[in-house]
Amino acid sequence: MAENALSVCVIGLGLMGGSLALALREAHWAEWLIGVDRDVAMLAAAEASGAIDTGTTDLAAGVAAADVVLLATPVRTILRLLPEVGRHARPGALIMDLGSTKQQICRAMTGLPEGLEPVGGHPMCGKEVAGFASAEATLFYQRPFVLCPVSRTAPAALELARSLALAIGARPVVLDPAVHDRAVGAISHLPYALAVSLMSIVNAGRTPAAWSLAAGGFRDTSRVAGSDVSMMLDILLTNREAVLGWLDAFAVPLAELRSELDRADETALRERLTAARENRIRLRF
Amino acid sequence: MAENALSVCVIGLGLMGGSLALALREAHWAEWLIGVDRDVAMLAAAEASGAIDTGTTDLAAGVAAADVVLLATPVRTILRLLPEVGRHARPGALIMDLGSTKQQICRAMTGLPEGLEPVGGHPMCGKEVAGFASAEATLFYQRPFVLCPVSRTAPAALELARSLALAIGARPVVLDPAVHDRAVGAISHLPYALAVSLMSIVNAGRTPAAWSLAAGGFRDTSRVAGSDVSMMLDILLTNREAVLGWLDAFAVPLAELRSELDRADETALRERLTAARENRIRLRF
Repeated sequence: MAENALSVCVIGLGLMGGSLALALREAHWAEWLIGVDRDVAMLAAAEASGAIDTGTTDLAAGVAAADVVLLATPVRTILRLLPEVGRHARPGALIMDLGSTKQQICRAMTGLPEGLEPVGGHPMCGKEVAGFASAEATLFYQRPFVLCPVSRTAPAALELARSLALAIGARPVVLDPAVHDRAVGAISHLPYALAVSLMSIVNAGRTPAAWSLAAGGFRDTSRVAGSDVSMMLDILLTNREAVLGWLDAFAVPLAELRSELDRADETALRERLTAARENRIRLRF
Repeated sequence: MAENALSVCVIGLGLMGGSLALALREAHWAEWLIGVDRDVAMLAAAEASGAIDTGTTDLAAGVAAADVVLLATPVRTILRLLPEVGRHARPGALIMDLGSTKQQICRAMTGLPEGLEPVGGHPMCGKEVAGFASAEATLFYQRPFVLCPVSRTAPAALELARSLALAIGARPVVLDPAVHDRAVGAISHLPYALAVSLMSIVNAGRTPAAWSLAAGGFRDTSRVAGSDVSMMLDILLTNREAVLGWLDAFAVPLAELRSELDRADETALRERLTAARENRIRLRF
């Protein structure tokens, strides 16, 4: 496949799919970009912006015309659509997704008809706004783009997936789906669960003064609580075991901190806060 | 007191005190700005930048020359310095602080010699960097500046404190110290405790892949874990009861979320995530 003669179908033109279409267009990676969405207005907006060449609500037609199919919907919609994609995709087509959890999707990809080339994908980026209106070509720039080939994936297909990630400015990282899911459970899903729980205790009823005082620290810690609900629900439910494990792991140092504070153990607290600070600084964000 | 003939002494020229000096200078609120710090290099830097007119390591001398004394050190240092400030301050001087917790400080202020005018203060702003090098005049701009008069504070002194807050672009908010401490316990100290605990489970040893994937959500949720340790230690230890209460309150919705996820209760989870998202959006950050 000559890369710039490729026909690409993006399913779901929300923030991620829309941004991907814009980025592929800017990179001239695809010759023909097809958008598939249930939302006709979103298709029209994507077409008007030049992100896609043509839009359709007919998944079968869109998929059948593409060398590369990219599923960019919430995880459980990807799981639901994969069999239909499998029925209509061209032989040899690269079937890729942008889903936030990878084990269930890669398992489903293994069941696709022979001759298709599945690669699970997860670009590590996002915003707390959904929809094509928020899409931007630079969303993936310098962000890790996790690639999860399954056992049957041909090396050439993985190379094509890697070339796509590089074309949009991302850093491809090949990972085992279980390793990916455990890692994002810690760095993304657990912080989300904490932010959600934080929002439910700091409410206007109980602490009227709190809202008006909320400063940068609170804004940042709670930001991810504003994430798209359907997307996050799918993530939690398809990464349940890892998230439950991290919630339990998190409970341990939190209980230790509580106990040190309860007995005003200054030495232990200082050690704990110092270690956390040093770890945080080592991240170099 | 004609405001622009005031002599002001700032004790502690770190991020907060340094920023306050710079902001007061820009606002022409004080005629003479004295900086007190143990760190001679910091005094020199503040003098060179024009933030202060003169610097000294002699607290007694600095305080004795001022109409307004502003304590800008960590909370327990403020508690330790207040008696000395009381011994050397001019009769009628406004004694104010920028400490992050207010109950213990306001209690200590009540014990200052008669004739002095204490007002507790807490500008709701900050950064995860310490020291005069990070100070900036705009730090307080449009941020709430909590003022806690004590029972003996004269109305004129509270007005002077309010005028200081307005001069640096902040929004003065008069609050009871206990109400303040409970509110910041929820919006600042609890998120900090969560960020610290988060950092202690996501470490390089246990999840090698995690660090390299960490995206914006994790960066934001963990940001406050990088805060100055001595400052935060003082905050936690002087707001112990409120923080313990919030830790316990936080445990309730977190356990509910865990249980809903454990039994894959989609309806309950969707309701919880939606409520959190709506509360977060209502904040309009």
